[in-house]
Amino acid sequence: MVRQRVGLTLHVIGSLLKYFALAYLAPLITAVCLGEAEWYIYLYALLLTLGIGLTLEFRFKTNKEIDRADGFAIVAFTWLLIPLLGTLPYVFPPVKLGFLDAFFETMSGFTTTGATILEVVEELPKSALLWRSLTQWIGGMGVILLFIAILPKLAVGGSQLFEREFPGPLPEKLRPRFRTTARHLWSIYLLFTVAEIALLFMVAKLPLFDSICISFSTISTGGFTPTTASIGAYANPVAEYIIMFFMLLAGVSFIIHYHVLHGNWKATKDEELRLYLIILAVASSLLIIAQGFTSYRQGIFQAISIMTTTGFATANFAYWHSSAKIVLLALMLIGACGGSTGGGIKVMRALTLMKHSGVMMRRAIFPNAVIPVKYNKKPVPDEVIRDIISFLFLYILVAVAASVVLCFFGLNLETAISAVAATLGNVGPGLGAVGPALNYAWAPSLPKVILIFCMWLGRLELFTVLMIFSRRFWRG
Amino acid sequence: MVRQRVGLTLHVIGSLLKYFALAYLAPLITAVCLGEAEWYIYLYALLLTLGIGLTLEFRFKTNKEIDRADGFAIVAFTWLLIPLLGTLPYVFPPVKLGFLDAFFETMSGFTTTGATILEVVEELPKSALLWRSLTQWIGGMGVILLFIAILPKLAVGGSQLFEREFPGPLPEKLRPRFRTTARHLWSIYLLFTVAEIALLFMVAKLPLFDSICISFSTISTGGFTPTTASIGAYANPVAEYIIMFFMLLAGVSFIIHYHVLHGNWKATKDEELRLYLIILAVASSLLIIAQGFTSYRQGIFQAISIMTTTGFATANFAYWHSSAKIVLLALMLIGACGGSTGGGIKVMRALTLMKHSGVMMRRAIFPNAVIPVKYNKKPVPDEVIRDIISFLFLYILVAVAASVVLCFFGLNLETAISAVAATLGNVGPGLGAVGPALNYAWAPSLPKVILIFCMWLGRLELFTVLMIFSRRFWRG
Repeated sequence: MVRQRVGLTLHVIGSLLKYFALAYLAPLITAVCLGEAEWYIYLYALLLTLGIGLTLEFRFKTNKEIDRADGFAIVAFTWLLIPLLGTLPYVFPPVKLGFLDAFFETMSGFTTTGATILEVVEELPKSALLWRSLTQWIGGMGVILLFIAILPKLAVGGSQLFEREFPGPLPEKLRPRFRTTARHLWSIYLLFTVAEIALLFMVAKLPLFDSICISFSTISTGGFTPTTASIGAYANPVAEYIIMFFMLLAGVSFIIHYHVLHGNWKATKDEELRLYLIILAVASSLLIIAQGFTSYRQGIFQAISIMTTTGFATANFAYWHSSAKIVLLALMLIGACGGSTGGGIKVMRALTLMKHSGVMMRRAIFPNAVIPVKYNKKPVPDEVIRDIISFLFLYILVAVAASVVLCFFGLNLETAISAVAATLGNVGPGLGAVGPALNYAWAPSLPKVILIFCMWLGRLELFTVLMIFSRRFWRG
Repeated sequence: MVRQRVGLTLHVIGSLLKYFALAYLAPLITAVCLGEAEWYIYLYALLLTLGIGLTLEFRFKTNKEIDRADGFAIVAFTWLLIPLLGTLPYVFPPVKLGFLDAFFETMSGFTTTGATILEVVEELPKSALLWRSLTQWIGGMGVILLFIAILPKLAVGGSQLFEREFPGPLPEKLRPRFRTTARHLWSIYLLFTVAEIALLFMVAKLPLFDSICISFSTISTGGFTPTTASIGAYANPVAEYIIMFFMLLAGVSFIIHYHVLHGNWKATKDEELRLYLIILAVASSLLIIAQGFTSYRQGIFQAISIMTTTGFATANFAYWHSSAKIVLLALMLIGACGGSTGGGIKVMRALTLMKHSGVMMRRAIFPNAVIPVKYNKKPVPDEVIRDIISFLFLYILVAVAASVVLCFFGLNLETAISAVAATLGNVGPGLGAVGPALNYAWAPSLPKVILIFCMWLGRLELFTVLMIFSRRFWRG
């Protein structure tokens, strides 16, 4: 049983690595074109990854059908192995980061977090900067598939609700569904990316290279930029508005995008979408008020950037007033919509629990009444509510435990709590000593390991990762 | 319908006020014996309260049986009206507090919170200090009844689990059950109080007056002391150990005490009790480590004081290292055991949710398996788990919303978050500007109102209070 599962997992990861290796072509071509001395690093990385991928794929050939438990193992280890192999361009010259720092940076990339250990981003060669944004873009593609096609099948954390009506075959087996769904969703993802690059380059007049890197990080709600000062570095209001628009899109379920792009505007009549926009409007207003009405654009930008868990900054919000900081912390927790590339608890879960509490209050008066919790006019099965509950509980438990450990390593309360909220929610920058003008480089090793673990846990909706740590899972 | 409910509520509250009025006898006798000039204040308060009580009781005579919805109204308004009337000794000379401050102090008393707006406690006449501790002692008696006899019947927030096996009649109607249960529990409550007074006075050699006040605040997990510097003022290790022991008892379900006092030691084989002790042991160790092994006694004292939501202090923990502060914050959230006089989310709820998450993880692998969540070897109905989750969700929602508002009134993050955790969890002192060496006097009016509301909400387990704000509730 265990051998079969390990074999199958390695086989599938091998076949994924094969495609992933091709991603090195982008920085390779960039390095060659720009005449960078160490262009061959990417070639080595490509060949090594391809080699490992093919070896795993053919060494562990199996006819076993993928069952639910295998699904967990595949997802969890894919998001561990790809970041591990993605460190190659960072650990060798010219970048030469320590392994832990490199792993932090790639985990932050592939989980579309955007937390960085780089003190001066501009010191990196262009090819490495492109690779950095590309890790987020690839991670974002993975996340969309994960949320819309994989997790709902694994039925964890109430992610069944992310699925909703989606065209295409819905067989019991995972494999055939992948292709159709992936094709549909990735074409939208690509469309948005190209549109943003074009607008940033042609309308906002940003350099092409920066437009590409930023667009990669926007659509994936990642947050890496080729500048240390994030989006603020460009001092370009037009670019900021364009980025705001695309962050807003990236925080919405891609299923809704699919329907709208196919002319079905009814899909926008969605309860989660409505609450997402309401929270953004309220949060933006609060941030504007907290800033004393001095900068409307910064308030709106930061609300969108944090709620979608992108993490771009146009201002050093770590220096803002407490009232603004607590709003940002709350947004980090809530996060974006289910089925988007954003992280956090997700608006949908908060909405379902809110409705559930309303129903429970009514039932406290009329204990015999049968009142279903309805989401988008359909009753939500009790099972799904219980899934959401255990998700929320574990989320809080992990957040508290991780914050406690970080404090014991000398981080202050604000830094520790916000660092955990920012990594578990895949946001990126936090407050205090991990604010947007600073970075995570100074953190001691163990806190870094914990934050890497938080990014991994948060991105895979906790369950998937926690599962592989249970003995029962491996005994089958 | 509404008229009947209002009438019944006022009738019951009137009959309670009648007894409550007698509580003024204690400060009255004290004031007379000590020759205080304004002893007549207590006589006026007594007569006024008695008058209002009798008027309400007889003006709103009704034959209506108390139903669930009435139960909510009675509980919510009792904990609003008694604190309101309890302000009398504070608003008149010699104490002469402003109304809002007086209301804050009595709400803090009757909800056994222990947050104070007094800057120098010793300035109050002895009679007022006694009244202050007495409000907590009376509040504690109310809380025990509330948790063991009333809330489980109203079935809110999973409080059904607090009930467990308890001897005595269990009829559907609320009234007859009250008397037996109250007699059983209050005799234990009284026994503990007398035992603590005796030990503090005779063994620790504290003044008799202080022993009485402190014991009133210990058994009710209140936290008021007749000293500004809390328990630290006595610099008396023996007293501290005695207080620790009784705080520990007060944080345990009084049903367990009942069984143990009747020789049934098997009752201590309780999962909640075990986890409560484990958390205390871990938290004490963490606090000792965080303090660099400089003071074992302080670490253990503060862990017990905060987890039981008493709020006594032997050290200014607001100046402790972040690692200690975050442990204290976590303890404030968890709180004590169900069926004790302590507040917070309660160990039992955390335990049930933890077990539930474990079950959901197993079900993610075996979706068709029927695995019940077991608590003390009995399966927990799904209904109860759903109650607990709506409780937890609302708790977090209220905490976040209240913290956001406090920050907008100029409080910093640490002060705002800890003030909300300390009032919602009925702990008392928080961190930052509301630390144990400071007080809530400086807070602007609206934050004070919000914190009063938090104490009320927290003490009545949210639901009871939120219910009376719903229109549906009043339409029946």
